[in-house]
Amino acid sequence: MKASARRELSSPRHPLLKRFRRALERGELTPDGCCAVEGVPLVEEALRSPAEVVALIAARSAERRLASLEAASNGRIRSYVVPDRVFRSLAQTETPQGIAALVRLREVQLEEPLARPQALAVVLAGLQDPGNLGTILRALEAFGGAACLLGPNTVSPFNAKAVRASAGALFRVPVGRNLKAEKIFSLCRQHGLKTVALAPRASKSLAEIDLRRPVAFLIGREASGLPEEFEDRAGVKARIPLAAGVDSLNAAMAASLALYEAARQRGAGQAP
Amino acid sequence: MKASARRELSSPRHPLLKRFRRALERGELTPDGCCAVEGVPLVEEALRSPAEVVALIAARSAERRLASLEAASNGRIRSYVVPDRVFRSLAQTETPQGIAALVRLREVQLEEPLARPQALAVVLAGLQDPGNLGTILRALEAFGGAACLLGPNTVSPFNAKAVRASAGALFRVPVGRNLKAEKIFSLCRQHGLKTVALAPRASKSLAEIDLRRPVAFLIGREASGLPEEFEDRAGVKARIPLAAGVDSLNAAMAASLALYEAARQRGAGQAP
Repeated sequence: MKASARRELSSPRHPLLKRFRRALERGELTPDGCCAVEGVPLVEEALRSPAEVVALIAARSAERRLASLEAASNGRIRSYVVPDRVFRSLAQTETPQGIAALVRLREVQLEEPLARPQALAVVLAGLQDPGNLGTILRALEAFGGAACLLGPNTVSPFNAKAVRASAGALFRVPVGRNLKAEKIFSLCRQHGLKTVALAPRASKSLAEIDLRRPVAFLIGREASGLPEEFEDRAGVKARIPLAAGVDSLNAAMAASLALYEAARQRGAGQAP
Repeated sequence: MKASARRELSSPRHPLLKRFRRALERGELTPDGCCAVEGVPLVEEALRSPAEVVALIAARSAERRLASLEAASNGRIRSYVVPDRVFRSLAQTETPQGIAALVRLREVQLEEPLARPQALAVVLAGLQDPGNLGTILRALEAFGGAACLLGPNTVSPFNAKAVRASAGALFRVPVGRNLKAEKIFSLCRQHGLKTVALAPRASKSLAEIDLRRPVAFLIGREASGLPEEFEDRAGVKARIPLAAGVDSLNAAMAASLALYEAARQRGAGQAP
């Protein structure tokens, strides 16, 4: 990697840095469709993923780390070195590692993954906690899920906490955003996915439902649960059986358990 | 509730406030064995739990909330009102709700819960993330677990983030702390608990192991896994089956799935 591919930026008002900071603060993509990513592990995940790392940004004191990331890349990435104080003004973590990146995600294709045999999807309708969203993406990938569909008023997957909690799954799992209930149920119908609403007071438990066929789990807002237009249209409701006196689980935990149960019913990890 | 039971404290250097701040900052108990708790939901959980709320501390602007908490208590709790700026200097959350408490947990009894039929326990050896610890306590309670045993070099359950993530389970689930490997395995042996180490590369999957008898799941540090002295002594190793290319799960997720699988095998939520 030639050091000459690097560019020095000293002003925190440089347009690239402004776009980065704004995207990170708002948890949204930059106007040219990039996700702002911070920290060595996530940037490494992005470099290994099918997403495109458009720019690496490093604090002056992290130039060595930058060099090893450049070496791990295909060599066509632009690198920008900024003074440490400018980097700190960009970062959202308390002890920034001095490494950040702008990452362009692949265009989201939902049709192909949802059409797979035994497709497994998660629908999030109104979920607010970015850590929960990221954890759910990680679990979805861990259990071979096809896609995540985000309904209205749901936290952005590009929120820095969501990206961090996803441990890079965001770069690999297709996430459809801002989808109306109408659109989500029509996608599920079209591809034959059974819609299973997770509801603490459902009469059936997850293990009683056949999850071997294509399935989409519907998960609502942490406190208030699924919005009516989702709960009413769900094909079936299911609860995770809990000990007496325990009201509910955290949304990310509920989603992970549902995905595990589906994978288990499909024979993952059974003796041959 | 008589308003006269309240006391006004104006100095941030008052011994009670110093003890509270120090416990919260260090994630440890106060010298007299109390856990520092912050925020309305947690204080409400503490009031409903078998733990003893020793003192309520409120910012001046939260006196109304204080009154409703006092009403929900048995009336023998001391309340302290402090100026808002003093409260902010106590709090660790960014937008404090103006309510905190000192909570004395019950003395930890491990023998009785571990002796129950089908006892379910979690052993954490080296776990570092307080959010993971709290989430695991919550999952343990949700699936009817008996106790959590903490090995050496494990994060404190009294860390503010752990308490918050436990959603109050810390006040109800017995947690044994600072236990040597020796002690932990001797407790398990004594009560007939099978020790099951969660290890990503184990040859058997969780669903292949009989989890209907008394079981303790062993979970290690997030990145490096179980310390040798725990892994070597475990009765059996088990993995959670994951999609190809996925390395491992977050420790809290792994623990929750193991607890779910045990509850499932024991017949929770099966059709009658």
